Amino acid sequence: MAKTLIFGHKNPDTDTICSALSYADLKRKIGEDVEAVRLGQVNKETQFALDYFKVDAPALIESVDDGQEVILVDHNEFQQSADNIENAKIKEVIDHHRVSNFETKEPLIFRGEPVGCTATILNKMYKENNIEVPKEVAGLLLSAIISDSLLLKSPTCTQQDVDAAHELAEIAGVNLEQYGLEMLQAGADLSDKSALELVKMDAKEFTMGNAKVEVAQVNAVNTAKVYEIQAEIETEINKIINDKGLDLFLFVVTDILENDSEVLALGEGKGKVESGFGVTLDNNNRALLKGVVSRKKQIVNVLTEEYTK
Amino acid sequence: MAKTLIFGHKNPDTDTICSALSYADLKRKIGEDVEAVRLGQVNKETQFALDYFKVDAPALIESVDDGQEVILVDHNEFQQSADNIENAKIKEVIDHHRVSNFETKEPLIFRGEPVGCTATILNKMYKENNIEVPKEVAGLLLSAIISDSLLLKSPTCTQQDVDAAHELAEIAGVNLEQYGLEMLQAGADLSDKSALELVKMDAKEFTMGNAKVEVAQVNAVNTAKVYEIQAEIETEINKIINDKGLDLFLFVVTDILENDSEVLALGEGKGKVESGFGVTLDNNNRALLKGVVSRKKQIVNVLTEEYTK
Repeated sequence: MAKTLIFGHKNPDTDTICSALSYADLKRKIGEDVEAVRLGQVNKETQFALDYFKVDAPALIESVDDGQEVILVDHNEFQQSADNIENAKIKEVIDHHRVSNFETKEPLIFRGEPVGCTATILNKMYKENNIEVPKEVAGLLLSAIISDSLLLKSPTCTQQDVDAAHELAEIAGVNLEQYGLEMLQAGADLSDKSALELVKMDAKEFTMGNAKVEVAQVNAVNTAKVYEIQAEIETEINKIINDKGLDLFLFVVTDILENDSEVLALGEGKGKVESGFGVTLDNNNRALLKGVVSRKKQIVNVLTEEYTK
Repeated sequence: MAKTLIFGHKNPDTDTICSALSYADLKRKIGEDVEAVRLGQVNKETQFALDYFKVDAPALIESVDDGQEVILVDHNEFQQSADNIENAKIKEVIDHHRVSNFETKEPLIFRGEPVGCTATILNKMYKENNIEVPKEVAGLLLSAIISDSLLLKSPTCTQQDVDAAHELAEIAGVNLEQYGLEMLQAGADLSDKSALELVKMDAKEFTMGNAKVEVAQVNAVNTAKVYEIQAEIETEINKIINDKGLDLFLFVVTDILENDSEVLALGEGKGKVESGFGVTLDNNNRALLKGVVSRKKQIVNVLTEEYTK
């Protein structure tokens, strides 16, 4: 029997990579035969965390074989998962997102909790199993929380995430604020990114009512700098809209210092952005969303509401 | 704000009713404002358990209002849930079934575990919250486990269910075997059921390959007694086959004392029953399936295999 594979979503972010690695550590200590893998390139922020805590990135896979036993972390929607996921045997899901486009033939362990980060759930699972969090795993879990909560500032961040972060910083032996800002800044270095890379870096597709919507998010320290190549970004986005038959593509550039987002909306459904957020897109199809930093709690829910009401 | 409603599936069984009542007790002790409700008539088996432990049945509802906060127990598939469930705010799911046709806009607490009964999960949740299971709640949870596991004999029953049942029987102050048999017998009292009621009581339709198959199951203490009205039962089944264009209708009468099932197969596909189970239907289109009690794990899987190989 092949090992059970543990992985997060496509376009992996720090929570997805670090949660897969950490859960694999916990599972092996419980005595299960598992391997963490990833579905895409490791981003700069995650690489900073892996380098800092001296952990190798998991191996890359693209699809899973029929009947392969898998554990999903940090996602459940099939379109965000490995190719052929519908023919795999999903044994577990550990996640903090809404449930959608997910189906199994058999009962499974499904642990979804409305916290800011999968890593916060995993930190609890170490405790529930009476297994100590190793120093480097504490570093990975902490990095995941910092990433998903924008250093505990996102509205998705719960008290559980805050408590876990402080606990884990101590085990990992780092200063939370200082390490966190360094890690976020490493991730916000977009200087070497092409327009296509920016658009694909952290893009997720959603089904909202009958519409297909993609929301891509990048963190930046200077949002204006990103939009210097807006023309090229639009070209890439329009290609994706045509290829996938999207109703709307929303490109979100989040200012990690100001905690606002400057968005670019393209596609037939761009009016949904205006009605949902009560803003007017300028001549460049852009708008500033004040205080909006969370794709999940401040964007996807608003757009889903617009598409289903 | 209206109370959060806790309910199980339509056509409520003992696990659905007892888990809703028990989780409402636990939630109230944690300090949440909740109310258990039900989506259909209380069956005889469940009524026996409620009477025995002197607990009132929850109130009946049919649909939920837009935005109503709800907690689902013992199911997740929307077609088994309250009308308008897609517009409710689902805060939690506690379940032991596969996940299918389920979707939320927001993250939620989703606790799915592959055990034999929802009540087994709830028993753990009392412990996790350091709250003692009251005597009458222990009785309800025990009744649910006995019902879903046919007194711990179904292949869906796990060690966790067995352990929980023994623990709960002690708290409830009943003899597991004796109480269990009495409760199952109360449910197996079919004396007042018409042929149509027997055929519809617990019928589920399945798509197997290109075939439409319906499997109805009733529990009985005397299977021969049920078949005294076989002619009328056949008339009702043949009507359903014609109406729905079924390939096969399998009527399963499960002997809760012997743990066997006497089945009646009608329709073009009745040969699949013979090949699947290695039996020969007698002149009355009936056969005894030794040791078969679980529709999910011993019948639907066998027939699906026959129709798809």
